[in-house]
Amino acid sequence: MSESFADRLVQSVEEKKSCLVVGLDPVLERLPREILGALGSGAPSNAGYCARAAGALGLFLSRVIEAVRDSAVAVKPNSAFYERFGASGCEVLTEVCRKAKKAGLLVILDVKRGDVGHTAEAYADAYLGSTPDTPGPYVDAITVNPLLGTDSMKSFLKMSHSGGKGLFVLVRTSNPSAHELQDLEVEGEPLYLRMAALTARWGEPLRGRSGFSSIGAVVGATAIEQAKRIRAALPHAPFLVPGYGAQGAEAAQLKACFRADGRGAVVNASRSILFAHEQKDIPWIEAIRQAAETARRELEQIRNSL
Amino acid sequence: MSESFADRLVQSVEEKKSCLVVGLDPVLERLPREILGALGSGAPSNAGYCARAAGALGLFLSRVIEAVRDSAVAVKPNSAFYERFGASGCEVLTEVCRKAKKAGLLVILDVKRGDVGHTAEAYADAYLGSTPDTPGPYVDAITVNPLLGTDSMKSFLKMSHSGGKGLFVLVRTSNPSAHELQDLEVEGEPLYLRMAALTARWGEPLRGRSGFSSIGAVVGATAIEQAKRIRAALPHAPFLVPGYGAQGAEAAQLKACFRADGRGAVVNASRSILFAHEQKDIPWIEAIRQAAETARRELEQIRNSL
Repeated sequence: MSESFADRLVQSVEEKKSCLVVGLDPVLERLPREILGALGSGAPSNAGYCARAAGALGLFLSRVIEAVRDSAVAVKPNSAFYERFGASGCEVLTEVCRKAKKAGLLVILDVKRGDVGHTAEAYADAYLGSTPDTPGPYVDAITVNPLLGTDSMKSFLKMSHSGGKGLFVLVRTSNPSAHELQDLEVEGEPLYLRMAALTARWGEPLRGRSGFSSIGAVVGATAIEQAKRIRAALPHAPFLVPGYGAQGAEAAQLKACFRADGRGAVVNASRSILFAHEQKDIPWIEAIRQAAETARRELEQIRNSL
Repeated sequence: MSESFADRLVQSVEEKKSCLVVGLDPVLERLPREILGALGSGAPSNAGYCARAAGALGLFLSRVIEAVRDSAVAVKPNSAFYERFGASGCEVLTEVCRKAKKAGLLVILDVKRGDVGHTAEAYADAYLGSTPDTPGPYVDAITVNPLLGTDSMKSFLKMSHSGGKGLFVLVRTSNPSAHELQDLEVEGEPLYLRMAALTARWGEPLRGRSGFSSIGAVVGATAIEQAKRIRAALPHAPFLVPGYGAQGAEAAQLKACFRADGRGAVVNASRSILFAHEQKDIPWIEAIRQAAETARRELEQIRNSL
């Protein structure tokens, strides 16, 4: 994995004609009946609940990976949905990353970590390192929280330099309360532009052959104006845009996240794909496959209309 | 655990005459030889490395917990040092939390999580919930990152209301780059005071009989002036102060974190206690016990000199 994350991402988007990222955020209660049947008696207080629940997630997600592998450029498991099931969940997370990588998908692990020196090093080891039985060997990029500043990023950046890994820095999130801190005005500009400036600084030495940096940004497309300002501040950063589908971002907002050349953003959809079977009377795996392919096509239309 | 976290903390500090928190951040290479001997051949690329490493951590920490149980009011495992060893590490983390609780210590789990709605719910479930085989049942409080704002805290706050759990919100961290974002001036005051204001708002409905709120703040005592301003802004919040010992905070800086009545702060020491055996030619467990007791006494002197 010596090639830079940015170059792998750009190449894969072009080859697959897809900027779709499928968020692997499974919710036990919403799995297909066929899978839940394997779980047995399911109360969380029962002995062995976590192991059984994690087993069901693993079974579900290995089939989801097969169903979306042609339509998606990457998957994005959010660690919380695995950590919820303790050590068994963590084991499944590693397995999911391994299987996705093997299926030719890029793996963006959504952990939103950010901590001081030695602790950051331990996180970098776990999620971007090479130790067997951790997600690290199978992960292409992680999401990180920049609140603690440059020294909290050093261990992660080191993995980008030495191992071709990528980061997506939280710059502007899409949740309703994001404005409380991220939009505060600092010397005439919103705080998120300061986070963008840090991201640009961290990413400058990590630009690949494609011109893109391996240090990207998480940019919630809830307001067009914001996306435009962040895009202008970060011309070389790939954007990870959450919220397509179930979270309801609109096409016009999405457009602002791409560069004028139609490059520079990948777009995440989680629930609208993972739980597509709830809306359709066809085999669940087919519903998921169709939802992913439809999302891929819609996103390509947006990209081609730029 | 229906009593509020704040009240349990205040009571335990008074009973034990200790505001010492021992950070359980184990580094494999620095464990006593006696423990490392149990590990066998140790290269990270060897099969079973994570399981063996986690086993060594578990062995070490169960003895550390016994050694510090009388001197410390709480332990603070940082999740990164366990996640680094994959599922085996997560299993040991749960065990460490369980054993610490059983030893009468409060458990502050340092995870610094912060994420959007459903994801935050999954994290709250894992770390403040009641599912067996997760750390939740044994954890009294966690650290959280406020960058995403109020809605990212709702699931955690719910656990404070319903389960008597506590939160320590990152308000001003102690690392060298913390100033890059946290000290930026927002309408005439530093950003960390905005984070303090949010913390106060979240904590107001969660004040216990002691007068303290279960929503506390992580306050790195690197500058006296900062600590004083945050203390003034958050009179009812317990402070979790990192950096005593190895990280080198000074007594005067620490003083500013307490209220004038000598209450309201607990102080973390990690490496200076956990690796005390490296400095002394006595049995390692005794070196750790002595280091914890010395730290407890020093902190009580500071507290009593207010």
